[in-house]
Amino acid sequence: MTSPEPARALSCGLDLGGTKLLGLVIDPEHPEAVLATKRVPTPHQGLDALVEALTAMVAALASDVGTADAGTLRTVGLGAPGLVDRDGVLRLGPNLPGLVDVPLAALLGDRTGLAATVDNDATCATWGEHELGAARGYRDAVMCTLGTGIGAGIVAEGRVLRGANGFAGEPGHMVVEPYGPPCPCGRRGCWERYGSGSGLARLARDAAAAGRIPAVVQLAGGNPGDIRGEDVTEAARDGEKGSLAVLEDFGRWVALGVANLINILDPQLVVIGGGLVEAGDLLLAPIHRALADTVLVSRRRPAVKVVQAQLGERAGAVGAALLAADRA
Amino acid sequence: MTSPEPARALSCGLDLGGTKLLGLVIDPEHPEAVLATKRVPTPHQGLDALVEALTAMVAALASDVGTADAGTLRTVGLGAPGLVDRDGVLRLGPNLPGLVDVPLAALLGDRTGLAATVDNDATCATWGEHELGAARGYRDAVMCTLGTGIGAGIVAEGRVLRGANGFAGEPGHMVVEPYGPPCPCGRRGCWERYGSGSGLARLARDAAAAGRIPAVVQLAGGNPGDIRGEDVTEAARDGEKGSLAVLEDFGRWVALGVANLINILDPQLVVIGGGLVEAGDLLLAPIHRALADTVLVSRRRPAVKVVQAQLGERAGAVGAALLAADRA
Repeated sequence: MTSPEPARALSCGLDLGGTKLLGLVIDPEHPEAVLATKRVPTPHQGLDALVEALTAMVAALASDVGTADAGTLRTVGLGAPGLVDRDGVLRLGPNLPGLVDVPLAALLGDRTGLAATVDNDATCATWGEHELGAARGYRDAVMCTLGTGIGAGIVAEGRVLRGANGFAGEPGHMVVEPYGPPCPCGRRGCWERYGSGSGLARLARDAAAAGRIPAVVQLAGGNPGDIRGEDVTEAARDGEKGSLAVLEDFGRWVALGVANLINILDPQLVVIGGGLVEAGDLLLAPIHRALADTVLVSRRRPAVKVVQAQLGERAGAVGAALLAADRA
Repeated sequence: MTSPEPARALSCGLDLGGTKLLGLVIDPEHPEAVLATKRVPTPHQGLDALVEALTAMVAALASDVGTADAGTLRTVGLGAPGLVDRDGVLRLGPNLPGLVDVPLAALLGDRTGLAATVDNDATCATWGEHELGAARGYRDAVMCTLGTGIGAGIVAEGRVLRGANGFAGEPGHMVVEPYGPPCPCGRRGCWERYGSGSGLARLARDAAAAGRIPAVVQLAGGNPGDIRGEDVTEAARDGEKGSLAVLEDFGRWVALGVANLINILDPQLVVIGGGLVEAGDLLLAPIHRALADTVLVSRRRPAVKVVQAQLGERAGAVGAALLAADRA
């Protein structure tokens, strides 16, 4: 008589965004198949409501996968937007007002009874892309997510580079123009003032003020102050020249920061993710053009590939689930 | 009858500079004691002369330590100024004209009969400081050497961060001012145009042109174009106000790059080395003042220490010797 096989250990991944909370369950041994998934709006009524929403989502996902065949939920990983330390304490989340020094991993573990870990959301997305997406098979890779700000994650020699406190990978606040526009972080000319969705919108508003992109102003409803990055990519998709010029300028700023990261970290691959990357080659081609010759002695090193993320909005939750399973 | 103890495996470290070649021998198990040391001018008559000088130095050092008591020389590590790949090929050395794509590790191994490795010189110095100097006991540290340019090395989780090709740690060519002065690398506004000894000299020449540092101009022999970084620190040592202001400005530029590295790598410690650091607090105090509040949410993270290197000119050779022994 053989003893029954132990149930497979499943892992739950949660990705906490400014507007929505996305959750899923995977078997870390076969992570390609998502066994259950769910999304709810991010609650903004303080810590208790947030922990409640996280706990309820884990319970709902657990119920969805059941226990019989699929396996048993053992771990939960959360990607959170902000500085998360190595103990899973959210030190500060700019898009989660009031949440400061919150021991999220401990709270999540207590409430769910699972082994819980919390990491920065871009770190989780990077790991997701490394394990299943665009960075699969690359030992040294960097991912930058271009959204409202710039998130990033670093994989060095096949492992997440966390830094002393867990705060590594915040190139959005690398200063690239000391006399540039002020940043909410208190400094001037941070990369994310240029290379993020907000940066693109700012470049576009400048172009609009100079009368160079009337079509984009029209798309934005007539008010240059309302232009979003997506308005630029939409006009560019129609071949509108002014918006293509704005994207070319934007690509130079993205490439400037990417080249800085390449000079510091020497990755084989840089993955560009975040909402903006849905514009595809409209966004990537200007980056590629600007990157040529911007990296130190580019003739003497293999070209660094700069590619689009593949997992879309699932990257963070998948990475969080895998990181939790790895550390269990 | 007991078998004789095997002879201890000694390691030779070589540090190749633009002007001098420094060599030493250590026992990697007891690296504090330097068993032999030697220096010669760097030959600039091409590859053969260089390999000859390296080989002769290893032979002379081997003869100095003898074999009886100290142990047997088994490995040799070389720190070279330039981009060195993971196979020990010097891809490009800006201060070693004509040396391009040179398989230095293979040549050195063939000629000496020892297990030979070659790394970037600043990487070697960083490892030396990590094992025996200012960064001892720090798992995550960065070292920047401020000389003619800026060299750097990164230690992450107790290991040298090499990157995909071995080229990691070149923040000197991180662009921090896209409209700044041209750099020999082909771009504009690289950090080493500001934060190196050449950068300090440039800032001082600007101040001299504006008539703000007559004492420094005098030290330099009357010609503002001849001002070197050392002239500024010498005048500052005497309390000369204009040169102190130049160092304050210089400290802001050094701090800008250091803060960028902290935001990307999250080290516990940053070591400042290179010739300029002999000025001690005259140099470090302005950096410390400028760093306060320049790092992302500095209130929410333990302060990053920024300290002076301890091993002086031996750091590179010690690190090279230890890296060679580690990989043997």
